[in-house]
Amino acid sequence: MNISELTRPLLLAEPLEHARFAPFGQVIEASATARHFTINAGNTERYHDLADVAPGPDGRAIISIFRGQPRRLPFTVEMLERHPLGSQAFMPISGGPYLVVVAPPCDRPGTEDIRVFLARGDQGVNYAPGVWHHPLLALDAVSDYIVVDRSGPGRNCDEIELDDPLDIDIPAAQR
Amino acid sequence: MNISELTRPLLLAEPLEHARFAPFGQVIEASATARHFTINAGNTERYHDLADVAPGPDGRAIISIFRGQPRRLPFTVEMLERHPLGSQAFMPISGGPYLVVVAPPCDRPGTEDIRVFLARGDQGVNYAPGVWHHPLLALDAVSDYIVVDRSGPGRNCDEIELDDPLDIDIPAAQR
Repeated sequence: MNISELTRPLLLAEPLEHARFAPFGQVIEASATARHFTINAGNTERYHDLADVAPGPDGRAIISIFRGQPRRLPFTVEMLERHPLGSQAFMPISGGPYLVVVAPPCDRPGTEDIRVFLARGDQGVNYAPGVWHHPLLALDAVSDYIVVDRSGPGRNCDEIELDDPLDIDIPAAQR
Repeated sequence: MNISELTRPLLLAEPLEHARFAPFGQVIEASATARHFTINAGNTERYHDLADVAPGPDGRAIISIFRGQPRRLPFTVEMLERHPLGSQAFMPISGGPYLVVVAPPCDRPGTEDIRVFLARGDQGVNYAPGVWHHPLLALDAVSDYIVVDRSGPGRNCDEIELDDPLDIDIPAAQR
């Protein structure tokens, strides 16, 4: 371990809540505060229209499955990516918590712009177009996610290397 | 129990497989035969564009969560519905098997048009526009599903009562 590793900042994950995540997109969950109503002759509760799916005027929404290998904590965030032309939603289908690292739309996010959230296995996220985020950060086990994002013309993925990498972890009480 | 109940036809569920389900839409699963490729510097496998999301020219794709109460087997199918203006995809996020009852687009499906599939907890389905289907048929437990369907103008739900209700069940070997 060298000096720079010793002095890297450490950011602990916040809980994933609607108000906290609002600058970056939407939390997808069947919460009591979500708009919901009963359908199918009383059999089913519909939690309605939980994310702003935004494929853009020349794109279309597609459904994929991402299978992510688990990461070890603490994890060093060295890069971020963004999709300028469309939203991207993730919903776990294997259960299990995961980490969400984001920064608001800007030219080049710095350490102070980055937020880390701990998502429960029953919570999804939808990144608004242009929101910087780290690729999938599954924990504990190989995990599958339903992904709703954009297919269409144009360059829809930018990546940056951070000037100052940082370490992320989850609070000890939630390990 | 009266005579008509005794004589109602019984249909046992088929396994949910791509070729069998093709007349009705797509099976959503991370199968070896799906188009897939590695992303995120080797961390993630992307099973790409697994369903024909079709919100129509004046609609948009939305993401909802459906929470279904479990049904008891054998279950009597008395009605079907269809969404003429858009596709509707279901992916279980609680795990657990469920039943899928469909009939191809037509004016009025009869008993001979109806197919029943047993979906595993890691399989989703996408109904093509106009495909008749029964509302959510969770089994075993209260179950949540991510639903990708259409929001937009116009009437997008037709329901019919079947002239001849039928009973459905799963094969004894899979109970």
